[in-house]
Amino acid sequence: MSFSITVLGSGAATPTIGRNPSGIFVNIGNNYFLIDCGEGTQMQLRRFNLKAQRINHVFISHLHGDHFFGLVGLISTFHLTGRKETLHIHSDSQLQEIIALQLKHTQTQLVYPLEFHPFSQPHETLFENEQVTVKSFPLVHKITSTGFLFSEKQKPRKIKKDFIQHEEVSIKDIKRIKAGEDYVSPQGRVYLNRDITIAAPPPRQFAYCSDTRFDEKIADYIKNVNLLYHEASFLDDELDTAKEKFHSTASQAATIAAKAKADQLLLGHFSARYKDLNGFMKEASKVFPNTVLAEDGLTITIPLK
Amino acid sequence: MSFSITVLGSGAATPTIGRNPSGIFVNIGNNYFLIDCGEGTQMQLRRFNLKAQRINHVFISHLHGDHFFGLVGLISTFHLTGRKETLHIHSDSQLQEIIALQLKHTQTQLVYPLEFHPFSQPHETLFENEQVTVKSFPLVHKITSTGFLFSEKQKPRKIKKDFIQHEEVSIKDIKRIKAGEDYVSPQGRVYLNRDITIAAPPPRQFAYCSDTRFDEKIADYIKNVNLLYHEASFLDDELDTAKEKFHSTASQAATIAAKAKADQLLLGHFSARYKDLNGFMKEASKVFPNTVLAEDGLTITIPLK
Repeated sequence: MSFSITVLGSGAATPTIGRNPSGIFVNIGNNYFLIDCGEGTQMQLRRFNLKAQRINHVFISHLHGDHFFGLVGLISTFHLTGRKETLHIHSDSQLQEIIALQLKHTQTQLVYPLEFHPFSQPHETLFENEQVTVKSFPLVHKITSTGFLFSEKQKPRKIKKDFIQHEEVSIKDIKRIKAGEDYVSPQGRVYLNRDITIAAPPPRQFAYCSDTRFDEKIADYIKNVNLLYHEASFLDDELDTAKEKFHSTASQAATIAAKAKADQLLLGHFSARYKDLNGFMKEASKVFPNTVLAEDGLTITIPLK
Repeated sequence: MSFSITVLGSGAATPTIGRNPSGIFVNIGNNYFLIDCGEGTQMQLRRFNLKAQRINHVFISHLHGDHFFGLVGLISTFHLTGRKETLHIHSDSQLQEIIALQLKHTQTQLVYPLEFHPFSQPHETLFENEQVTVKSFPLVHKITSTGFLFSEKQKPRKIKKDFIQHEEVSIKDIKRIKAGEDYVSPQGRVYLNRDITIAAPPPRQFAYCSDTRFDEKIADYIKNVNLLYHEASFLDDELDTAKEKFHSTASQAATIAAKAKADQLLLGHFSARYKDLNGFMKEASKVFPNTVLAEDGLTITIPLK
């Protein structure tokens, strides 16, 4: 099953040439999600040839413009291009009012259903199907800000190929074995479940930590995550600015990755004041070596173990 | 005095790679204006190295998203980069409500004054200073749509250099001569105004015709304009679509240019369905030869005659 994310915007509130505001496209087994939708996100989806029309769920971390100003444009383009599927928006409640007012004044009657799912508590399951769950957790920003944890579901143990080839096992039996039962052949021979099956690979997880002050509790919410995106607006020489503006530094983001025992850290949301990003890599990798800097268009695939 | 316009977006409602939604940057003698502000306009201003911070007046032709979804982002970036000057928005009245709601929910208290000037009648003077006037005129679209005519003011006649060099003329006299009076020397010799002055070049004009159905009356509003931007969403084979959607074809735009006796026609707002734009040039130039196709980043300077 595929599990990849693509960075649509690696910049902070003020967009720069080459760094769009926030947005991440997620593909987990052909379930497509969008996290945040800064201005220009729809153009980025097009630029990087991503399956924009197949996004059914959008998660907006918080209501600062660089995280949602592009949403109304995406919604409008879906309308103009004849979308049929329902689009689900998971966000703070006020976003519904913002979108509704713009649809009203542009006299737009959407040709597809748009459903808002306002956040109701700091930790909740926002989405679940047979393959994926998306859960929220609280961040610490000037305004309410929410992180997201995307988790593959644990797959059942697989029946060994040579067992199926040698024995005449019915479909009913296969279901039972997959559910963990042992198998008894018509001749009365008992096969222990652990001998005739192999474990599926461990499920993969991606966590998205949008705008937030450094908060150690975040590490507890995302323990053992394979890939952690964490904002890193500043370097350590701007530690006070980071604190004052409720943002994080590169080394603070790396500290969260280390405490969470993440496999890999992806830094983004770089303040426009930094022309050269080497400092981010230097400061973060001291604390957490397996760090990558976000770039618009960068795709990271989480491999099966 | 400079008089130039730069295309920020040449596409229609659905943005394409390389064609942003509508926006035009206008520079008349270092008075900077923005017409329309589709999503991504602030990035285009940056990309083309234009003096975004010096824009004091924004004119929004109508409230379809591809003409204003980028405005809230531009307003926010001006805020984040510490703008001080008042920003004036000229538009239909509902835009104020849309912007205000977003500033409220993003908890933004702008650090500079933002003033809305809602359109009040179909023809009005929206802006005037010593060098420029901006007037509005009605277009014909699904919703109220407004065109804009940017006019340089007629400059006073210039006093001939050799006259000033040979005669001892006071500053008071110069003002009188510029105001059209004849000059009488201390010796009682009379110099006729027409002999000691030369006419300033004729004032230049740029007209912006945003989304509109073909309407011959438009030509009357913009007679003898030097440069006409007119939307051309479709080709002639989509004449019925154009009519139904309240848009124009390339040859209809050219007909307006011809009837207005414009010097030059700039076509834009091309529907995303056209990958190749040669047809637009072909159909328009049959009716009006001096036609140019808009491209993102294209600057046109209107020369003095």
